[in-house]
Amino acid sequence: MISNSEEEEILKFLESNIRTIPDFPKAGIQFKDITPLLGNPLAVKHTAQLLVKPFLNQHIDFVIGMESRGFLFGPKLAMDLKAGFIPVRKPNRLPYKTVRSEYELEYGTDTVEMHEDALSSGARVVIHDDLIATGGTAGAAADLVKQLGGEVVGFSFIIELSFLQGVQKLDKIASSHTLIKIG
Amino acid sequence: MISNSEEEEILKFLESNIRTIPDFPKAGIQFKDITPLLGNPLAVKHTAQLLVKPFLNQHIDFVIGMESRGFLFGPKLAMDLKAGFIPVRKPNRLPYKTVRSEYELEYGTDTVEMHEDALSSGARVVIHDDLIATGGTAGAAADLVKQLGGEVVGFSFIIELSFLQGVQKLDKIASSHTLIKIG
Repeated sequence: MISNSEEEEILKFLESNIRTIPDFPKAGIQFKDITPLLGNPLAVKHTAQLLVKPFLNQHIDFVIGMESRGFLFGPKLAMDLKAGFIPVRKPNRLPYKTVRSEYELEYGTDTVEMHEDALSSGARVVIHDDLIATGGTAGAAADLVKQLGGEVVGFSFIIELSFLQGVQKLDKIASSHTLIKIG
Repeated sequence: MISNSEEEEILKFLESNIRTIPDFPKAGIQFKDITPLLGNPLAVKHTAQLLVKPFLNQHIDFVIGMESRGFLFGPKLAMDLKAGFIPVRKPNRLPYKTVRSEYELEYGTDTVEMHEDALSSGARVVIHDDLIATGGTAGAAADLVKQLGGEVVGFSFIIELSFLQGVQKLDKIASSHTLIKIG
């Protein structure tokens, strides 16, 4: 077990392994780069340990990971919960029959897909991504789960850009668990 | 420890969780779909256990995972080897300064990138992807490692399309370890 004061120290350590890249992918965006964290074995171990904590004993059947940075910790989170892993991907990348959900961007819309046989009705699902901004993709993933009759038990993120209030938007679906809140 | 006869049974079980999708992404290609394997917690656990086996006690510093299906088991493989994880991505997706390597496709060329500070000279590296076909992307990843002065200790794949002879092409760099050989 990790005590609260230990957890605070660990989170500071993880945050020190995230670097901000200005103006990526476009001007005005402060990109949160987790590659220093990924390159540090201790940081990776701690991240995985803290991600699983909120969902222990919650009888999770599947963890969804959002393409592509949600693939990095999603399968390990699934493994630690003895759950299966489901990839949610951009259009036309999954090879079998899919369900789709469209969501709004600043300008226009985008779409995500999941295999139509990925889960069965009643399955308890956690949706994971590395970062939550406006919550658009996570909300669309929740819609995919509902289309197949599953239940979203919670959302899991490493980083939350709090000023964009994505978590508040997801609250009507399920609660979010984030390691590091920024802004 | 897993005995040889147990390992044979496990590999049959894993292979039964891979499905072939005809004509994806284009006519004539028999796509190997690992999503049934990912959805099965026991299959995921066994896959991770068998991937790590060839590299135990090899003093690996980093595991590289190729975007995007190499992200699924790459970080877990790194964790089990107490190594860091490095993503290799398609052009313009990594936020920091990168090194690049171009490789040949059937028609034209493609490029992969890695952060220029991802590893330091002398680092011992394993390159992982879900599947090896002609070996073009894995060879390009090895080139990135060399550009930064690292050493490729080996290649790791879940599936090998043997008839395309990609492993033979990589043999002059390092040996490949594949769980399931097809064709």
